[in-house]
Amino acid sequence: MGGRHRYPVVVAGPLTETPTAEILAIGSELLTPFRIDTNSLFLTGRLNDHGIELLGKSVVGDRPQALVEALRLAVGRASVVVTTGGLGPTDDDLTRDAMATVAGVPCHEDATVLEAIAERFARRKMPMPAMNQRQAMVPDGAAVLDNPHGTAPGLWLPLGHSVIVALPGPPREMKPMWETHVAPRLAVWFGMRHLRRRTLKIAGRGESHVDEIAAPIYGPLRDGSPAIETSILASPGQVELHLSAKGADVDALDRALDAAVCALSRAIGAPVFSVDGRELEEVVGDQLRARGGTVAVAESCTGGMVLGRLTNVPGSSAWVTGGVVAYDNLVKVRDLGVPEAVLAAHGAVSELVASAMAAGVRARMQTDVGVGITGIAGPTGGTDAKPVGTVVIAVDGPDTRHVVRTLRFPGDRAMVRQMSVQTALDLLRRACAEDCM
Amino acid sequence: MGGRHRYPVVVAGPLTETPTAEILAIGSELLTPFRIDTNSLFLTGRLNDHGIELLGKSVVGDRPQALVEALRLAVGRASVVVTTGGLGPTDDDLTRDAMATVAGVPCHEDATVLEAIAERFARRKMPMPAMNQRQAMVPDGAAVLDNPHGTAPGLWLPLGHSVIVALPGPPREMKPMWETHVAPRLAVWFGMRHLRRRTLKIAGRGESHVDEIAAPIYGPLRDGSPAIETSILASPGQVELHLSAKGADVDALDRALDAAVCALSRAIGAPVFSVDGRELEEVVGDQLRARGGTVAVAESCTGGMVLGRLTNVPGSSAWVTGGVVAYDNLVKVRDLGVPEAVLAAHGAVSELVASAMAAGVRARMQTDVGVGITGIAGPTGGTDAKPVGTVVIAVDGPDTRHVVRTLRFPGDRAMVRQMSVQTALDLLRRACAEDCM
Repeated sequence: MGGRHRYPVVVAGPLTETPTAEILAIGSELLTPFRIDTNSLFLTGRLNDHGIELLGKSVVGDRPQALVEALRLAVGRASVVVTTGGLGPTDDDLTRDAMATVAGVPCHEDATVLEAIAERFARRKMPMPAMNQRQAMVPDGAAVLDNPHGTAPGLWLPLGHSVIVALPGPPREMKPMWETHVAPRLAVWFGMRHLRRRTLKIAGRGESHVDEIAAPIYGPLRDGSPAIETSILASPGQVELHLSAKGADVDALDRALDAAVCALSRAIGAPVFSVDGRELEEVVGDQLRARGGTVAVAESCTGGMVLGRLTNVPGSSAWVTGGVVAYDNLVKVRDLGVPEAVLAAHGAVSELVASAMAAGVRARMQTDVGVGITGIAGPTGGTDAKPVGTVVIAVDGPDTRHVVRTLRFPGDRAMVRQMSVQTALDLLRRACAEDCM
Repeated sequence: MGGRHRYPVVVAGPLTETPTAEILAIGSELLTPFRIDTNSLFLTGRLNDHGIELLGKSVVGDRPQALVEALRLAVGRASVVVTTGGLGPTDDDLTRDAMATVAGVPCHEDATVLEAIAERFARRKMPMPAMNQRQAMVPDGAAVLDNPHGTAPGLWLPLGHSVIVALPGPPREMKPMWETHVAPRLAVWFGMRHLRRRTLKIAGRGESHVDEIAAPIYGPLRDGSPAIETSILASPGQVELHLSAKGADVDALDRALDAAVCALSRAIGAPVFSVDGRELEEVVGDQLRARGGTVAVAESCTGGMVLGRLTNVPGSSAWVTGGVVAYDNLVKVRDLGVPEAVLAAHGAVSELVASAMAAGVRARMQTDVGVGITGIAGPTGGTDAKPVGTVVIAVDGPDTRHVVRTLRFPGDRAMVRQMSVQTALDLLRRACAEDCM
C-alpha cells in the first residue's frame, strides 16, 4: 500500500467547541484584476454543513514565504485550513513544500501516487513529463486524497489540533474530491455538528426599513437556545435576511429557524417574496404555473431584461408567452396600440402610456397578464419634471384589474434598469398573488 | 473646515522601490456561501495602474479582534492597505475603530462629515437616524474622502511607511471615490510609476485556438524592452488577451503595447472585435450609429437577453428600434410571420424558422437589420437530432444579405443562453462590418 493510506499515528483532534475554518486560495493569477476565487463559495457551504464556521479567507500568490506565513497563521487560528491550488507539477506549485515546512516534516516520494500519475498518462498514450514526479511528493504524516479527475492528489495533514486539507484548484477536480474524501473525514474528525440556514427575500422595501421592523424580532433570538444569528444584505431592489443556527440536533435547529422565519415574515408582510431561496422570477413562475396563467411583457427602458429574467427559469415556456421591446415610440404605437395622442399629450414616460403598453401586449399576445415598462434610464433624456430615474410600470390583468406605479430610482443607467426590472417583477408577483386570474 | 481636510503633520511616505498592496474585504456576509468580494478586481486593476503590485487579499468578518489583527499584519507587509466595507452606521461596522486601534489614536467626531450626512437625509426629506452619527467618527490623523453617492465617507490614514485607505463596500460608492480621491493621492504618495494595459477581445474562437496563433507573437515580447506580460482569459463566447508593461516612461510603454496589439490583431483577424475595451454591444452600436442604421431582434430561447445587452449601451435608442420575444410558437407565426407550414415541417429550432424570424422582425419594425434566435436552452426539450444546446441564429439585412448558423453549445441552460447571446451579437457585428446598409 506504500504511504497512500497511511495515517499519522498520533492524532490530537480538534479542541474547540465550535470548529472554525480558514480558506486559502493559492495562485498569483488570483491576484490579477481578471480572476476571482469562487471555489471558496462551494467550500464555505460544505464546511457549514459540518457546523464549521468560516473565520476568514485569503488569496496568496505563488511565493514560498508568503504561503508559509499564511498557512502558519491559519493553522494557529482555525481548526480546519482548506487550501486550493498550488498542487500542480511546476516550480510555481508550492503547497506541498509549504505544508511540510509548517509541519516541520520532510516530504517523501509516494510510490502509489507516482504509479497513479504514470497510469493516467499511459491511459492517454502520452509520455509522463519528468516534472509530474513532483506531484508524488507527500509531506510525512499526510494522507493522500485520490484525484480521479486530474494528476494532482489532495492531502490531509493533521497538525496538533488542526488539520490542513490541500485540494487542487480546478473546480471539477476539487468538488468531487471534497465529496468523496474530505466530507467523510471531517465527519469523523469533528463528530456531526450542523449549521443550518434560512433566507427571507424581500422586495420593494429599503434595508433600513426592513431592519427597523426585523431588529426587535431577531435581536432576542441571538440569546435563544439554539442561538440564531441574523444578517441583513441589500442589493438594488432586494433585501435579504439571512438566519443561521449551529448545533448537533438538526431537528431542533430547523424548528427554531422555521419559527423565526414565520415571525419575521408575519411582521414584514407582503414584501417578503420567498423563504426558500427562490428568486422573484421563480416565484412569479410558480404562481402562474399553479393557475395555468400566462404573461407577456412590453419593455421600453429595460429593453428585454424583464423577459430575460423570466425566461431564466427552466420550463418558463409554459407561462411566458413572449413580449415586445418597444424602444422606439413608433413600436409603442404600431405594435402595442398606444394612442399617438396619448404619447403626444403625456409623453412616453407616463402612467397612461405604461398602462396602454401593458394592456396592449396582453391583448396582442393573448395572455392573462400584461406588464408595461417605460422610463428614463439615462444618462441623458431627463427633464425637470421627469428626471433620469423616472420609471412607470403597469400590470394589466383580467376583470379590469390594473396597477400602475410611477417610481423615481437613484443611481446610474445600470442601477435604474436593475431597480426597474426588480420592481416590475415584484408588481407582477403581487398582482398574481391577488388571485387575479 | 473642521477635521475634514486635515492632513497628518508628519508623513513618512513609502519606503519600498516597488510599492505593494493588500486588500481587505470586510463583512461577515462575505464569509457565507452566497456572497463573493468582487471589489478587489476593480481595486487590483487600479492599484496596478500606479505600478503597485498586489501581495494578497483577504476577507474578514465583522469581529473586532480579527479585523485589528488582519489590518495590523497587512500594514506590516504592504505599502498600501485598501479596505472595503465596514463603514456603515451599525454596530457591525468596525473599520473606523479598527483603524484607530491599529494606529494607536482616538477617533473624533468630524463636524463637516456630520453635516454632509444630515444634509443627505434632509435632501431626501427623511429624518437622520441617530446611529448614522457614528459615520462621522474619524480616527485622528485620517483625511476624510467625500462620498457623494452614500452616507459613508472614506478614510485615508498614513501610518509610518504605509497608508490605510478605507472605502465603502457598495461598488457604486467605492469606484467614484477611488477615481476622485484615492488615485490622485496615490500619484502624489508614490510618485508616478505606471503600469499600462491593453486588451484584445475576441469572439467566436476558443481559448486554445487563440493561444496557438498568439503565443508565437507574445512569447518574445516577454524579453523585450519594455517587457510585455501577456495573459489569456476565457469566458463563455469570449476570449481576451491582456497585455501589460511597467515603467516610468508612459510613451514608451504605450508604443510597445500598441505595436503588440497591432501584430496580434493582424494574426487573429476578424474574430478580434475590440482593442479599446468596448464590449460586443458597444461595437455593434458604434457601427450602426456611424451609418444611421437600425436593428430589431426576435428572440426565442434567449428571451430578451440580446435586446437587454444592446440596450445596456447609453444612447442605444438611436439604433435599437425594438423587438419581439417570441417564446410561444403562436407569437412566431402571428407577430413575426413565420409560416405555420415551415414550423410544422422543420420544427421551431431550424434555419428556416430563424431566418423567417429575422426577416419578420426586420419587416415589422422597419429596421435595416433583423436578428432571429431560436434554440433549445434546456434542461428539457432536447431530442437526438436536436439536443439541448442546439441554437440557430439568423441575421437579415438589405440587398438579400442573409446569414444563418446552426450551433451546438455545451453546458447548462445559463451557459447555452449566454453563448447564444454572445454569438448573436458577434454575427450581428460581422454583418454590420460588411457594409451591409
